[in-house]
Amino acid sequence: MSSTHEGAHEHKRLVGPVRIVGSGLLGASIGLGLRQQGVEVILDDASPSARRLAIDYGAGRAPADGDEPTLIVVCVPPDVTADIVVRELADYPNALVTDVASVKVEPLRELERRGADVSRYIGSHPMAGRERGGPISARADLFVGRPWVIAGHDAISYRAAAALEDLVLDLGATPIEMTPEEHDRGVAVVSHAPQVVASLMAARLGDAPDASLGLAGQGVRDVTRIAASDAGLWVQILGANAGHVETVLRALRDDLDGVISALSAPSDPGSLRAIAETIGRGNTGVARLPGKHGQSTVFTRVVVMVDDTPGQLGRLFTEMGEAGINLEDLRLEHSPGAQFGLAEVSVVPEHEERLIDELVRRGWTIAGAQA
Amino acid sequence: MSSTHEGAHEHKRLVGPVRIVGSGLLGASIGLGLRQQGVEVILDDASPSARRLAIDYGAGRAPADGDEPTLIVVCVPPDVTADIVVRELADYPNALVTDVASVKVEPLRELERRGADVSRYIGSHPMAGRERGGPISARADLFVGRPWVIAGHDAISYRAAAALEDLVLDLGATPIEMTPEEHDRGVAVVSHAPQVVASLMAARLGDAPDASLGLAGQGVRDVTRIAASDAGLWVQILGANAGHVETVLRALRDDLDGVISALSAPSDPGSLRAIAETIGRGNTGVARLPGKHGQSTVFTRVVVMVDDTPGQLGRLFTEMGEAGINLEDLRLEHSPGAQFGLAEVSVVPEHEERLIDELVRRGWTIAGAQA
Repeated sequence: MSSTHEGAHEHKRLVGPVRIVGSGLLGASIGLGLRQQGVEVILDDASPSARRLAIDYGAGRAPADGDEPTLIVVCVPPDVTADIVVRELADYPNALVTDVASVKVEPLRELERRGADVSRYIGSHPMAGRERGGPISARADLFVGRPWVIAGHDAISYRAAAALEDLVLDLGATPIEMTPEEHDRGVAVVSHAPQVVASLMAARLGDAPDASLGLAGQGVRDVTRIAASDAGLWVQILGANAGHVETVLRALRDDLDGVISALSAPSDPGSLRAIAETIGRGNTGVARLPGKHGQSTVFTRVVVMVDDTPGQLGRLFTEMGEAGINLEDLRLEHSPGAQFGLAEVSVVPEHEERLIDELVRRGWTIAGAQA
Repeated sequence: MSSTHEGAHEHKRLVGPVRIVGSGLLGASIGLGLRQQGVEVILDDASPSARRLAIDYGAGRAPADGDEPTLIVVCVPPDVTADIVVRELADYPNALVTDVASVKVEPLRELERRGADVSRYIGSHPMAGRERGGPISARADLFVGRPWVIAGHDAISYRAAAALEDLVLDLGATPIEMTPEEHDRGVAVVSHAPQVVASLMAARLGDAPDASLGLAGQGVRDVTRIAASDAGLWVQILGANAGHVETVLRALRDDLDGVISALSAPSDPGSLRAIAETIGRGNTGVARLPGKHGQSTVFTRVVVMVDDTPGQLGRLFTEMGEAGINLEDLRLEHSPGAQFGLAEVSVVPEHEERLIDELVRRGWTIAGAQA
């Protein structure tokens, strides 16, 4: 399973065995990560063949009579999460149970409605890997460096929940404490609503003539990239977080109505101002997204032409490294029909001039720069 | 001004002098590109200091009495484009006049309304560099490999328009013929509506608590990246292409209303299906965007952990190059608080297994893969 990132797993905290229910990407990745730490992992799945596959990949062992897990991690689709948590709480009366579903209010409510022992349940949500499918894609390091929300509630004590934090830390993730409500409101605005918006925009491309699509640049590609996500999974996620997503989308629709109204009469007084204010509010909002290392930093982007042959990007970044210039971010863009790409490299503004000098001196073509 | 991409400019086609009006990013870049070909360039600007700056950068010479340009390129903001084209047509009765505004119907209509000699005017639109500002960012190679729309109309003959195609080819761009109507409808759906959608989504981030923003992943970053664009410029673009943008946004709002309605009653019959169909239409739409080299190709993405030190990416790509594996696309992702990044490299599916083998053998940590 590849090598280990140094420093990530210095001390194992968790005392097993850990029982994982559901051997898809998340379940199998958690199993692999814990096995790498030497934690005993029991792997279960409603599908015997899926379970066997994940076990073949080394993510754990099959369940056996007399198993006494300390922690159970439920990694099943959102719409069956509460069912399985109820069953696991009943089957293993000494274990702490968590789940990894991407909504947190609805499963807890459902457990309370059913009278489950929520003094042994605490929900969680690793912000990783959701787009990827199946145990075949599983990796021990899937969670390293990623935020992992721990959604505490009043009915569970701090001590009872400790094993979940151990799990998060053992897998190299960063625990983030939030209430279920805060979590669901948060993912509504930073994940669920953006998914809907990307899908709505991408749907418009479905009707467009081919010639129009030939004019597509990086902007529309970025806006619609996540529109390629799985419809079945998103129906469950959006359905389970419907209220918060609806709130965000209603506010967005009010703004959209304002733009449409302004566009329907662009020369009316106030129309251009309404459009400018919408774009301006977008400027303000996007600037709030945390940047690299959690800070909002503005980088200078320099666009370099790169021939479409193996090793060209390697040479570019090796030469940047030789010049002591750190790459903060990078995007590749391909022009339709061209046999080369444009690499947009982001560097701290202080390095821009030197970067351009060094690259030009080595024969690279600079196709643009912007602060 | 950097070196020249080989093969891009083998033969100069254009016979000058070319007069450029407006010395911002586009005007200055066109000047630099033509100067590099040895074409005589006359640079004018309503602002004497802006003109002097672009001339200092080598983008052309100041106007002089008796100038007889063969081609005039108007590179001014959309809302004054028609004014300047009218003036240039009158001042230089033997020249072909073009403009580079990002809307094409409205300027032509305005010229016709004013009785300008449109047998010497043809609009155009280079699909490059719009986000970047000022002559300081200008580059001779800004247009290399980019589409450049030539918006022909019935009042100009093929021969009269030839110099514009020469300009496009001399600058290394790819000419694309469209009517002004086709152009404006096209950019409405692949550029102008995505801008509005990104801004509307980003505006929602403005109200969100800090904790919510801490959960932001690559998805919302991509959806909102272009929301950082300049409000003043976008007011002009959207105002000048209001009808087509409004059409796209109205259709989008109808779909949005469907989603909001479904989310307001997710357990009603048909609600989940409505959501699934929206996501599904998005899947179909985004799949229509042309991929690298104009083809829709599906690549496998492999996520590699990269320490945040200079040269690490260089080593990664050098080693990929040594293994003969071509990088098709790349994204960098930084986890908040982590001192390393995740490089998502896209390769043809046939190379996935070998890529992972080669990288693991050389000590890289693979943090995930997906088809």
